[in-house]
Amino acid sequence: MSDETNITMKDIARDLGVSVATVSRALKDSPRISAEKREAIKKYAQEHNFYPNFLAESLRKSKVQPIKVIGVIVPQLDHFYFSSILSGIEEEASSRGYRIMVAQSRESYEDEVKICRAFSESKVCGIIVSQAKNTMKYDHFQTLIDKGIPLVFYDRISTGINASRVVVDDYMGAFSAVTHLINTGCKRIAYYGTSLTMQIAKNRYNGYLDALLKNGMHPNEQLIKNCDNRSEAELITPSIMRLPEPPDAFFAVNDDTAIGILYSCKRLGFRVPEDISICGFTNGQRAIACDPMLTTVEQRGIRIGEEAASILIDQVEGRLPKDKIEKRVVRTRLIIRGTTR
Amino acid sequence: MSDETNITMKDIARDLGVSVATVSRALKDSPRISAEKREAIKKYAQEHNFYPNFLAESLRKSKVQPIKVIGVIVPQLDHFYFSSILSGIEEEASSRGYRIMVAQSRESYEDEVKICRAFSESKVCGIIVSQAKNTMKYDHFQTLIDKGIPLVFYDRISTGINASRVVVDDYMGAFSAVTHLINTGCKRIAYYGTSLTMQIAKNRYNGYLDALLKNGMHPNEQLIKNCDNRSEAELITPSIMRLPEPPDAFFAVNDDTAIGILYSCKRLGFRVPEDISICGFTNGQRAIACDPMLTTVEQRGIRIGEEAASILIDQVEGRLPKDKIEKRVVRTRLIIRGTTR
Repeated sequence: MSDETNITMKDIARDLGVSVATVSRALKDSPRISAEKREAIKKYAQEHNFYPNFLAESLRKSKVQPIKVIGVIVPQLDHFYFSSILSGIEEEASSRGYRIMVAQSRESYEDEVKICRAFSESKVCGIIVSQAKNTMKYDHFQTLIDKGIPLVFYDRISTGINASRVVVDDYMGAFSAVTHLINTGCKRIAYYGTSLTMQIAKNRYNGYLDALLKNGMHPNEQLIKNCDNRSEAELITPSIMRLPEPPDAFFAVNDDTAIGILYSCKRLGFRVPEDISICGFTNGQRAIACDPMLTTVEQRGIRIGEEAASILIDQVEGRLPKDKIEKRVVRTRLIIRGTTR
Repeated sequence: MSDETNITMKDIARDLGVSVATVSRALKDSPRISAEKREAIKKYAQEHNFYPNFLAESLRKSKVQPIKVIGVIVPQLDHFYFSSILSGIEEEASSRGYRIMVAQSRESYEDEVKICRAFSESKVCGIIVSQAKNTMKYDHFQTLIDKGIPLVFYDRISTGINASRVVVDDYMGAFSAVTHLINTGCKRIAYYGTSLTMQIAKNRYNGYLDALLKNGMHPNEQLIKNCDNRSEAELITPSIMRLPEPPDAFFAVNDDTAIGILYSCKRLGFRVPEDISICGFTNGQRAIACDPMLTTVEQRGIRIGEEAASILIDQVEGRLPKDKIEKRVVRTRLIIRGTTR
C-alpha cells in the first residue's frame, strides 16, 4: 500500500478488492452499492485519512455535457450601470447552466466587429450586446443573425437591425419624475439632456414635455439645454440661474449631470430643495453619496440583464422561436430623496 | 448568373472562370494575384454591386487558431472596484488575443467551487480570481494548479495556497494617508477598519499605526473602531465625537465608511475639514460625489487587472515559468481633495 497521507481511491479499491467506481460510489453514498459494502469502504477511507476530492474527479469526467457560452458585449466595464446589467446577465445565465464570455467595445465600432467575429469563432450560443456609440453599420450583427446565432440588444438599441431587445421605460421614467416636481410645487422646470438623435434621449425628452403639457405648462426654450455630464452642468448652470426668470427645478438625464447642477446651485447660494429641486436618472452609487441625497429615476440594471439573458436562453433552448423579435420594457422606479421637496 | 442583388464570390468566380480563392484574394488586394486580374475582378464585383463580407468569410474559415480563454472569478460584478479590475483584465487580455469568461461567486464558497469546475471543463488556459469572503478550504484551487492550469489571485489573496498574486500596497497607502493627516495638523486620528483576520485590513492598520509612531504619537484604543461601512459609521460616530477628547481626524478603510463619517460629522455641526479631517480608501465614483469631495487613497483597479492578466498570459505563453510564484504590488496614490486641510 502507498503512503497513507497520499492514499488514493485506486489504493482503496486494490486494498479492498473492489473497483475504483465502487469506491467512488460508496464515498458518495450511492444506493447502487449495498449499505454494508458502503460502510466498509467509508470506514477504511476514514481510517486512512482519505477525503475524496470530487472536484478533481468531476474534472476527469468532463466533456459529458459541453458548457454553453453566451457572448456579452459591454461598451465599458467600469461603468456602474453596465456592470449592474452584467451582474444580472451572469446571475440568470449561471442559474440556467450557462457561462458568459465578456468583451468591451470601448465605444469602438472596429472593436465591436472584431468581438463579434471572435465570439462566433468561439462557438457562443448567442450574443447579448449594447452597441458602441459610433456604430452606424450593422453588417456584423446581420452576419451573426444569418448564421443563426441569436442576438439580444440591451440599453442601446441598434436602429439599423430588427432584433430582440430589452430597454427601460425612459418615457415613463421621465414623465413620472417631472410630474413629481410639478406636484411638489415647481413651476419652471429645466431639462438637461443629450442630443435627440439617440432614442433614449428622445424618449426622456418626450416624457418631460408631456408631463409639462398635461399639467398646463409650456416648455421654455431657455430652460432646455444640451448637457449630459457634470463638468458641463457646472459650466452652464450659473448662467441659467442668472436669467430674469430662473428655473426652480431641474430634471437631468443622468445622476452625474444632476450632481453637477446640485453643487453649482449650492455654490451660488441656493438651498436644495427649498429654493431649487433636482431630479436625476440612473440611481447609481453617486446618488446616495451626494448631499443632500439625490431624487432620481432608478434604471434597474440587474433586471435588464436578467431579462436579456432570459430571452436569449429561451431562444437557444427553443422556448421562444428563434426568429421571433422579442421586445421587453423594464419599468423604472422614481426614488424620492433629499433634492426634491 | 444569379440575381445581381445576391451575387456571391462563387458567382463571380464562375462568371470569370477563376477560383473562389482568387476572387477573395483579389478583393483583398492580395499581391498573389496579378494587378491586371485583380482590377478585372474588382471591377466586375463593383459593377454587380458586390461588397464582400469578410466577417462572414472569416467565420467560415474558423478553427484555424482557437481563441484562448481566461476564466475570471469576481466576488460581485456590480461593485466599482471589482468592475474596474475586470476592465483592466479585459483590456490586457484582448490586446494579447485572449478572451475572458466571467463568473461571480457572490461571496459563496460553494459557487466558487462550481465555477472552478465549469471553467476547467471549458478548457480555460488559466484563471484569475479574488476569493469569496467565506472561502476557508482551498482544494478547488489546488486541483486547478495540479492540473497545470495557471492561477493568479488579485485583491483578496488566498492565504491557504501559494500562487501568483497582485495586490495593492495597502500598508503604504494607509501610511501616506495618515502621514498627510499629521502633516496638516491633526493630533487625534481615529481609525475605522475591518477585523484584523484579513490580510488587507492588517496591512492598512499597520500603516496607520506606524505613521502615528513615526511621528511620536500613540494609538488611543478609544479611537480605533471595527467598522467598515456607511451605516455603521453613521451609527457609531456621534458617540466617538462626544468623548472628552474627540478625534480631529478619521482614516477609514474604504470610501463608503468615510462618507458615513463625513455626513455624521456635518449633522453634528462640525465643519469638514476646518474642525475634522477625513480620509478614505478606494477612490470610486462616490469619492467625488460627496460634499466636500473626499481625500482618499486610490486603489487603481484597472492597473491591478492589467498586471494579473499579464502574469497569467506570460505563464501560459512560457515567458514566465509556470511554477514560479509571481507576486506584484501595485502602488497606491493619495488623492487630496476637500475633506482634509
